[in-house]
Amino acid sequence: MQRVAIYGEAGSYSEQAARERFGKDAEYLPYPYISDLFKAVGSKADFGMVPIENSIEGGVTQTYDELLASKVQIVGEHILRIKHCLIANPGVPIERIRRVYSHPQALGQCKAYLQRHRLETIPYYDTAGSVRMIRDDQLVDAAAVAGERAAALYRMSILARDIETDKRNYTRFFILAKRGSGERGDKTSIVFMLKSYPGALYHALDAFAYNKVNLTHILSRPVLGKPWQYNFYLDIEGDGNDPNVRGALRMLKKVTISVKVLGSYKKAKPVEE
Amino acid sequence: MQRVAIYGEAGSYSEQAARERFGKDAEYLPYPYISDLFKAVGSKADFGMVPIENSIEGGVTQTYDELLASKVQIVGEHILRIKHCLIANPGVPIERIRRVYSHPQALGQCKAYLQRHRLETIPYYDTAGSVRMIRDDQLVDAAAVAGERAAALYRMSILARDIETDKRNYTRFFILAKRGSGERGDKTSIVFMLKSYPGALYHALDAFAYNKVNLTHILSRPVLGKPWQYNFYLDIEGDGNDPNVRGALRMLKKVTISVKVLGSYKKAKPVEE
Repeated sequence: MQRVAIYGEAGSYSEQAARERFGKDAEYLPYPYISDLFKAVGSKADFGMVPIENSIEGGVTQTYDELLASKVQIVGEHILRIKHCLIANPGVPIERIRRVYSHPQALGQCKAYLQRHRLETIPYYDTAGSVRMIRDDQLVDAAAVAGERAAALYRMSILARDIETDKRNYTRFFILAKRGSGERGDKTSIVFMLKSYPGALYHALDAFAYNKVNLTHILSRPVLGKPWQYNFYLDIEGDGNDPNVRGALRMLKKVTISVKVLGSYKKAKPVEE
Repeated sequence: MQRVAIYGEAGSYSEQAARERFGKDAEYLPYPYISDLFKAVGSKADFGMVPIENSIEGGVTQTYDELLASKVQIVGEHILRIKHCLIANPGVPIERIRRVYSHPQALGQCKAYLQRHRLETIPYYDTAGSVRMIRDDQLVDAAAVAGERAAALYRMSILARDIETDKRNYTRFFILAKRGSGERGDKTSIVFMLKSYPGALYHALDAFAYNKVNLTHILSRPVLGKPWQYNFYLDIEGDGNDPNVRGALRMLKKVTISVKVLGSYKKAKPVEE
């Protein structure tokens, strides 16, 4: 049986994404901390499913930082449409709800709905965790915002579905496994640290333009212990062994202190609706 | 009297930064939501102090998104050294502490200290808010991780100082005011949306390289409602009215759908220690 490490509490959006990919027969191991999830991949778990980017909120910074330090490899990509539900204890009617708990990002994404219903919002550290808390404390005037998997897991009622303001709300996940387990892909993720001189980033991007390698994403992250210096994360089209990608990486090395290939993998299928 | 909008609860790191800049005679208005803070600048508040980037955690994404939409202007920059304290109710000895509440980022930054003392960590939505909760609930086996301003404000004890693992922990803030109130600066922040073709980012950076304008920071953020498209935020050296900056912006317009100058301002003084 495949063991898949998921981010967050049981019932999280990472679990939803993992279930779409690995089915209901896999075993899902929840990790509240991303750093612990990375450690589990290759030992307690065969795979890991971590969020890397949300189409509204942007990059998941801890994931980027762990990718830099970790020995695991990206072996796949998955896109999940995020559909927030309003979740309460069974039998509680929507008219009795006064307060709504969830992660601040989820509350923010449902702001229009929550304001229209004059519901007070209370930040909580996790979406699925807020469902569990409302159940454990048997709250009857409170609800939580989370995914439907959290409602099913904790046997709670869904009072409303799709309450997010912008329906074009997607999270992109990376599937992780230990090094050497990847297959040939059509997309590659890398991270590099630039040499420190004006125009270095421009020269780095020239390496890809010159070799006709398309960039699909760029993200900068601070270098730990070196305030105001940055690592750059790039997603590019092509496998790491394609001749033009190899040419670009060779050129890139001239203007960088370090380059790390995080993995080549098949592009995620776009999600409809 | 100057009224300064600060992010978070009273006693937050934003308040500490604002006090370093505006002194103790200003009035500080706390805003738990960054969007409300932006709305207050120019009406209820003369200035706003918002975090834009932490040297460990990276960019504060809500601030970037509000800068794109808002009519306020960046008129200054401030850098604060983040020093986390372990804070408890007066009279509670450190030996009795079992649990520690704080924002997950703050807990993560103090992980080595908290593990060494075998303290259980519990995520809370805000640093200063966790101090207030411990006081309100009169907890005697729990502490919070927050800045010294939160301890002073709520008349709590500081059990330990500087408990962060990496002392090179800085947050950069922007000072906001209504449009037209800025002075001449030596740094400028802009945001632009690229035309959609391969190599567009490379051409955008060429506009600055060609005009000998140095980039100090680049950050990408998703475009709301357009999954997998990005706005790029740049900090560049020079005032927006310098001839070479104006030349770069003119070139930039050829490869972008939109360009917005967020403000020119004086570079923050570096912080020692």
